[in-house]
Amino acid sequence: MDNKIGIGILGLGVVGSGIIEIINKHKEMLYKKTNCYLSIERILVQDIEKNRHVKLNKDILTTDAADVLNNPHVDIVIEVIGGTDDAYLFIEQALRNKKHVVTANKDLIALYGRELHDFAKQQSCDLFYEASVGGGIPIIRGLTDGLVADEIEEVMGIINGTTNYILTKMDEEGVPFEKALQDAQDLGFAEADPTADIEGLDAARKMAILTRLAFHMDIRLDDIKTRGITNVSLTDLKYGKELGLTMKLIGIAKAHGDTLQVNVEPVFIANDHPLSSVKNEYNAVYVKGRAIGETMFYGPGAGSLPTATAIMADVIHVAKNIQLGITGKSVPMIERSARLSPHHLQTSSFYIRLHVHDQVGSFAHISQLFQDMDMSFKRIIQTPMKKQQTAEIIVVTHQTSLETFTNAKKKLQQMDVIKSIESYYQIEGETI
Amino acid sequence: MDNKIGIGILGLGVVGSGIIEIINKHKEMLYKKTNCYLSIERILVQDIEKNRHVKLNKDILTTDAADVLNNPHVDIVIEVIGGTDDAYLFIEQALRNKKHVVTANKDLIALYGRELHDFAKQQSCDLFYEASVGGGIPIIRGLTDGLVADEIEEVMGIINGTTNYILTKMDEEGVPFEKALQDAQDLGFAEADPTADIEGLDAARKMAILTRLAFHMDIRLDDIKTRGITNVSLTDLKYGKELGLTMKLIGIAKAHGDTLQVNVEPVFIANDHPLSSVKNEYNAVYVKGRAIGETMFYGPGAGSLPTATAIMADVIHVAKNIQLGITGKSVPMIERSARLSPHHLQTSSFYIRLHVHDQVGSFAHISQLFQDMDMSFKRIIQTPMKKQQTAEIIVVTHQTSLETFTNAKKKLQQMDVIKSIESYYQIEGETI
Repeated sequence: MDNKIGIGILGLGVVGSGIIEIINKHKEMLYKKTNCYLSIERILVQDIEKNRHVKLNKDILTTDAADVLNNPHVDIVIEVIGGTDDAYLFIEQALRNKKHVVTANKDLIALYGRELHDFAKQQSCDLFYEASVGGGIPIIRGLTDGLVADEIEEVMGIINGTTNYILTKMDEEGVPFEKALQDAQDLGFAEADPTADIEGLDAARKMAILTRLAFHMDIRLDDIKTRGITNVSLTDLKYGKELGLTMKLIGIAKAHGDTLQVNVEPVFIANDHPLSSVKNEYNAVYVKGRAIGETMFYGPGAGSLPTATAIMADVIHVAKNIQLGITGKSVPMIERSARLSPHHLQTSSFYIRLHVHDQVGSFAHISQLFQDMDMSFKRIIQTPMKKQQTAEIIVVTHQTSLETFTNAKKKLQQMDVIKSIESYYQIEGETI
Repeated sequence: MDNKIGIGILGLGVVGSGIIEIINKHKEMLYKKTNCYLSIERILVQDIEKNRHVKLNKDILTTDAADVLNNPHVDIVIEVIGGTDDAYLFIEQALRNKKHVVTANKDLIALYGRELHDFAKQQSCDLFYEASVGGGIPIIRGLTDGLVADEIEEVMGIINGTTNYILTKMDEEGVPFEKALQDAQDLGFAEADPTADIEGLDAARKMAILTRLAFHMDIRLDDIKTRGITNVSLTDLKYGKELGLTMKLIGIAKAHGDTLQVNVEPVFIANDHPLSSVKNEYNAVYVKGRAIGETMFYGPGAGSLPTATAIMADVIHVAKNIQLGITGKSVPMIERSARLSPHHLQTSSFYIRLHVHDQVGSFAHISQLFQDMDMSFKRIIQTPMKKQQTAEIIVVTHQTSLETFTNAKKKLQQMDVIKSIESYYQIEGETI
């Protein structure tokens, strides 16, 4: 067979098995779409003798990465082992040997995407990673190809299925965070150590990748302000319902002139915003472009077959590029490192929940402060509490800058009438 | 300039102007993305002297199509005049002259897509039409590139903004169809002659295109069963609310073995289905693939800038292909004409609203009929009406075949206890 393209796979977990399943099941369709045969030449595994559900010839299994990376029959290396140490070395070695690379490794691409891109380009090799964000959702191709002629102003994503599942549970069934997390773990939506998910680190890595593609700027992971969902309380969700707001862990990237704001945090989304209806383990990325306006990509954010599908879309893309002799050319441009937007440019409305001494004049004090800060509010809810002489006050502000809001928050903390700032969240979308 | 690619535009309405705006505004960005200059060489207009908002040199305007189509400096022809007569001749002539074609013309592609594809391939020319469905939403690229490795089982689209706007108005504000249509016309969402929109013909044309790309089968427009929204009543929307269902005009294409079901009709969508929350003039296409599961593309379905953005994404794609010498190769495969699915393979649940003589035993009669037809129901609502001796009955069936349902409907019509079948709709998504 002349038109054969050799595939090497690093890792044979659920995603690796999914890839083999697709290649075996859709041989003909893949041939029609690529005009070549995809042949799995070598697979790196930890244990050759392990029982596997997927049908394959044991002779192609190896425990030595070099058998894949230095194999002259391998044209495309698919990396699905995860992690950043071995994976980095393997991908670098693959590129050095002029093999094209397809990976689902968000951690690696978030950290080393820029230098790996440069190296791939230098080697005339393709390096694709559609599966690294949003599982099977073709969001990366949407940004790099579909919206290529637009100027992107804003990307907001629900890009962590675990936290979205937990927040949906809390919101719909009124169960507290710990219980919802336990449920997610029982159902396999959350890992035994859920830290990376619930603290927003996983979402931050994905935002680093999306930011690079949408804005052509490189952002350091450390520069992404990240707040997790561990402190989200049912009380706030209840007030949210009253105000027509739904809480979501959102990755936000917005351009302000030539600066960029990127953060990951729990945000109240107005119920008429398309992101508000994305539930359970589903992911969605909302993109606002100067020309297109609002658009959204929705789908399963994880799962072996969706992820394998995204990887195979990349493999098909590489296979076509190989035959056309154009590999290494569709690498996205990263023009420069991002400059972070100063806080006075980052505007939104805010929700803040306060406990105050329920005494004559306390309400007036707070109103006065907001007025002094030049920060008007849209809604205010005051509820007396069971605890003696304490009232709970919710304020929803009009659009204001993060700088103004942060200053106001500091001043509120110093006021005698205020017992505590219980919580505060940014609001996205038009509130009623 | 060596690396210059010449553009000819047929038509200078709102979309044509949007294209010129993007090309003028984003010269640098376009150069970076394509490594070439896009130069507008010639534009076909009806009246050269007409005042226009967009800045351009009048010398490039012409009233003679041949100046564009036979122009040696034109590499890519963008067709935005619409219609199927002149447009067909122009595109054929452009391809004959080995010019690549980008069009937003859904009518033309729905009717002649297959033969134009064949001709383009024969001429080694690209023929792209991302803007023909879903305006700025990159749904065509999503299907042909993003989900290329999946086997698509189902495509459901809200692909007509006018009817979605009308149904949203009716549902949220309780205004009847005629009033909602008038509002849509006043706001410019509906044309003076709204027939093609409200009768579902526009959606049917778009479904013909999506079907071809998703299932690689060609379907004749006449084979798409089409029902418009003119008979949708507020009464049904009210019952829908009670049942957790939202009415949408949906284009549905589903594969059953090697046969295909394609229809356009008002459908009740369960409120937990992602399509149910697509409101106003927005469009969305929901795709279910064997591997990826459920995914959805959402965005503005029309508008000059979103449409122009989609066209420019195509132009950039062609510009890259020209430089790579691979034009005419990324044409999607259309393998064969579609065989329509027989009605016994088309299953869903159904909503039916009946007026019955309010007499002892009438309810039992109807129940008996359903039982005889082997069609169980999930929900039944009976309401006495003001008209003497008449009751209104709503039945929501479990999953059943269209064949069974159609037979049941016929039998109901013949029953003495039944005064009239007021309405019936297919239901998609899990009903409660």
